Amino acid sequence: MGEFDLIAHYFKRPVRRAALGVGDDCALLQPKADTQLAISSDMLVLGRHFLADVDPRTLGHKALAVNLSDLAACGAKPLAFTLALSLPHVDEAWLAAFSQGLLALADAHGCELIGGDTTAGPLNICITVFGEVPVTRGQSQALLRSGAQAGDDLYVSGTLGDARLALDALLGKLKLPDDLLARARTRLETPTPRVALGLALRGVASSAIDISDGLLGDLGHVLQSSGVGATVMADIATELIAARAYLTGATGQFGINLSNEQWRTLALAGGDDYELLFTAPPALQGAVAAAAQASQTPVTRIGQIHATPGLQLLDRHGQTLENHYASFDHFA
Amino acid sequence: MGEFDLIAHYFKRPVRRAALGVGDDCALLQPKADTQLAISSDMLVLGRHFLADVDPRTLGHKALAVNLSDLAACGAKPLAFTLALSLPHVDEAWLAAFSQGLLALADAHGCELIGGDTTAGPLNICITVFGEVPVTRGQSQALLRSGAQAGDDLYVSGTLGDARLALDALLGKLKLPDDLLARARTRLETPTPRVALGLALRGVASSAIDISDGLLGDLGHVLQSSGVGATVMADIATELIAARAYLTGATGQFGINLSNEQWRTLALAGGDDYELLFTAPPALQGAVAAAAQASQTPVTRIGQIHATPGLQLLDRHGQTLENHYASFDHFA
Repeated sequence: MGEFDLIAHYFKRPVRRAALGVGDDCALLQPKADTQLAISSDMLVLGRHFLADVDPRTLGHKALAVNLSDLAACGAKPLAFTLALSLPHVDEAWLAAFSQGLLALADAHGCELIGGDTTAGPLNICITVFGEVPVTRGQSQALLRSGAQAGDDLYVSGTLGDARLALDALLGKLKLPDDLLARARTRLETPTPRVALGLALRGVASSAIDISDGLLGDLGHVLQSSGVGATVMADIATELIAARAYLTGATGQFGINLSNEQWRTLALAGGDDYELLFTAPPALQGAVAAAAQASQTPVTRIGQIHATPGLQLLDRHGQTLENHYASFDHFA
Repeated sequence: MGEFDLIAHYFKRPVRRAALGVGDDCALLQPKADTQLAISSDMLVLGRHFLADVDPRTLGHKALAVNLSDLAACGAKPLAFTLALSLPHVDEAWLAAFSQGLLALADAHGCELIGGDTTAGPLNICITVFGEVPVTRGQSQALLRSGAQAGDDLYVSGTLGDARLALDALLGKLKLPDDLLARARTRLETPTPRVALGLALRGVASSAIDISDGLLGDLGHVLQSSGVGATVMADIATELIAARAYLTGATGQFGINLSNEQWRTLALAGGDDYELLFTAPPALQGAVAAAAQASQTPVTRIGQIHATPGLQLLDRHGQTLENHYASFDHFA
């Protein structure tokens, strides 16, 4: 099967929202009046973002999920995406599973594939995603990293650290019981982009970012963009590791015995969580709770923004912890 | 230098046209009223699209040029682009040269870098480009592959085959004199996207495509999309090889002795030309000439569209040639 047959067979579908989809030099998209287009691009590479034996269906899911997560962090409604794919060879079973995983998530979010590129080469998946953000009375409703204000509460959605726990287990760094590995692996391989929460937080959150490189590292971008500092209650974040709650009291039995320090590292610097980290004024606590409920997404308050730059970590007793939780750097 | 420093140092610049550029989860772009956004994505891979010893400055140019060429083929005005880059390691000299080549071409077309991604991995460059197409009285002004009509003239811009000639020489398949290789190599490594011609052809051309995989292969996409056939005067196309004109009468001296058949293969199936192949009604021959002049781009009539599907090749004597000029397939 050649390049053009491949595109047509696995990826070409009738367009609904775009004016023109796959199969011309360009796709054509006509945004509605009084909207901005939010655009994000993520590249996934073998060995960095996924392991060689990954199920292609979950890889298709994840490749789009990490991009939808960027839209969620902006409060943008998914519209469309392009897919550029470099493949060592044409493996039809692989492509069928990959496209199923990809397009199932796309359909769930009404996000249509409008174009792209395929080439032979080392496995590489590059998706660029387009979302819609309303502009109200000349004002963009996008959630930005730069809007955090002193006094704001700091929140995180969902759970933390389980993706990294699964990765460490798959890399042989620690052992997990099978059922726990299966649960954690779901978080690593099929993360849930928090699109509904992002939309519900428009007009509520003062800033937002999605957690891809680790909570503290990504928080650092918000603090830098906003010119503020923060206090994070490290042990509240650590309690958000789903696997930890599951294991409580059963450490010996499962043959897993992580120190407090190791648990904190998973939660604070694990990465690959694709949860939303956001800020909102204390006066809007009720609105945050309503957004969490409307989007059926758990949200936990884990800290506070303050005017003095810098990051302070507190343990459960209110004691300051040293911050040595390095975030993920692709070139470190 | 880590990932974030790298982005900031080489690629982050003040945004002019976008509402928000590099450095948040998404870039924000607000298209003008009554415009469509034309979107195209191309991925460049080592060994497929460029050789290992390529000058990073020309690679930066080419990575954007092939994307701008897709906008040109749609008659879209360049606005912005995203860059996703996978690099084996951080080589500052390489990045400095690559970003200079890339941003120089971007500046020349008023096309700004608004976002992207960087990761460690095998060298891979994925650019997604955004252009603007007016919508007049509800009608898109985009040039499409599907608009060719029986009776239309078939045109090509610029020169053909020189890029492939250079590639074959660089791969050791043939020898070229140094000055000729230098000229042909310019066409391979720094192709000129025909953006001005594409804009001038709005309302004139009935269909258009850019030549990336080879003239006949790309023509095949137009014929299939439009449901028509074509006659191509193969030897007129062959005369568009710049190197051929330069060599005429000096074959022995330069130690290059290609058959008519080899020259035709370069022109008809060479690929990497990034010229525009387009159709227009005979009544608009004057308008085509005016578009060529306004955009300072040579344009040559090389054939005609007819209603009967299929492709007929004629030599200089009007004799039919067998079509065995396979187009480039990334997986063949």
